[in-house]
Amino acid sequence: MSKRIVLTIEYDGTNYSGWQAQDNAKSIQGEIEKAITEVFHQNIRVFGAGRTDAGVHALGQCAHFDIDTDIPGERFSYILNQKLDDDIRIRSSFETDESFHARKSAKGKHYRYVIYNARICNAIGRQYSWHVPYDIDISAMQEASGHFMGEHDFSAFRTVGSNIVGTVRTIYSLEVDKKGDYITIDVKGNGFLYNMVRIIVGTLIYVGEGKIAPQDIDSIIASRDRTKSGITAPAKGLQLVEVLY
Amino acid sequence: MSKRIVLTIEYDGTNYSGWQAQDNAKSIQGEIEKAITEVFHQNIRVFGAGRTDAGVHALGQCAHFDIDTDIPGERFSYILNQKLDDDIRIRSSFETDESFHARKSAKGKHYRYVIYNARICNAIGRQYSWHVPYDIDISAMQEASGHFMGEHDFSAFRTVGSNIVGTVRTIYSLEVDKKGDYITIDVKGNGFLYNMVRIIVGTLIYVGEGKIAPQDIDSIIASRDRTKSGITAPAKGLQLVEVLY
Repeated sequence: MSKRIVLTIEYDGTNYSGWQAQDNAKSIQGEIEKAITEVFHQNIRVFGAGRTDAGVHALGQCAHFDIDTDIPGERFSYILNQKLDDDIRIRSSFETDESFHARKSAKGKHYRYVIYNARICNAIGRQYSWHVPYDIDISAMQEASGHFMGEHDFSAFRTVGSNIVGTVRTIYSLEVDKKGDYITIDVKGNGFLYNMVRIIVGTLIYVGEGKIAPQDIDSIIASRDRTKSGITAPAKGLQLVEVLY
Repeated sequence: MSKRIVLTIEYDGTNYSGWQAQDNAKSIQGEIEKAITEVFHQNIRVFGAGRTDAGVHALGQCAHFDIDTDIPGERFSYILNQKLDDDIRIRSSFETDESFHARKSAKGKHYRYVIYNARICNAIGRQYSWHVPYDIDISAMQEASGHFMGEHDFSAFRTVGSNIVGTVRTIYSLEVDKKGDYITIDVKGNGFLYNMVRIIVGTLIYVGEGKIAPQDIDSIIASRDRTKSGITAPAKGLQLVEVLY
């Protein structure tokens, strides 16, 4: 009898082409599908809550799939972890009903971006952070972050190219924090356009450098013009922390 | 004119055979010596504050070398970082006088050991932590840590085999802390026997599991018997944080 299984997945995206299965490239989705096929001898399609780009990490990606088996849902994390590379860990698994869909049921996502802010690049943990060597003004970044809150057309903060429905998204929270040489930017929203978190981070860094004033965020959003916002911060600093349901 | 240069070095030891230069293996010392030779066309021997084993990391290893050059000491970090792999970063460099010796002048060292304590192994950061999947009693480990403090013969906490003078060492501080799923053990001492930090950590984990009582640490130390202490914790969880001068 077919059942729907939900997975919570942590991965180090350094050596992967991203979440989405592709020919001739090692993807997270592809590796999980391959592991399921090897164990259950069924061709299974896994549905993720959202795609993450090449080099982006996840602490709590979520995915579901349907499978014909008697094995209890809770056992899947153990079984699949035996097959998967250490780069990918199934943190938990359980059975759910067909009303749940990893992407369609999601109410939002929590992303974290990590910046290492010191003159010399870090060696330890550099695959999980963006090295910004110059002095940046954290309080200006914190002030700017407030201007992103709420519902806006985020056309100025996306890379054009992917098929998406609409450009209006709501940011629930955006927090900039500094501990030692590490700056973390935590953002929660109901959804994110392509590269939106990385462009917000690149724009906040422009604010930290003094290239953009905190209150200018309002007019950049209003412009809907990608050339007004900052650079796209590198993939490796980004983590999908949690999918909100 | 010859001058003595001091380096502070951060490295991700994952892909190295350890600090010490060896034939047919990539070492931290070997890579730094190779970089100096490439830039200055002089065969230079670099003296580290201490060896770290294969897979052990450093935030603040220290080393010195003598070189005949007009280049100011402060420039070496920039010059060598251009040549070195991203795994190794020279955090600072400066000129000193010949009375300073990276190993002989050291008053002690600060090591940190990182444990990831959750049922499923971490994917992100797993190269910098030891995965301990079972429940452990942090307060028992904290109580046990006090028994290591001070001057003792640590014969029960070393791997025999290396040439060392004496087995008496002083531990200045030993702190066990838990944040989320991560346990950090910070230890400072005037010196450490071969594998001593990793055996102390393995023993503290036995205490956390209830295999050893906190107050038993005293008799284990007194026994000078390696078979009484715990396992040698894996290299990848260990970082040399700072050399104390």
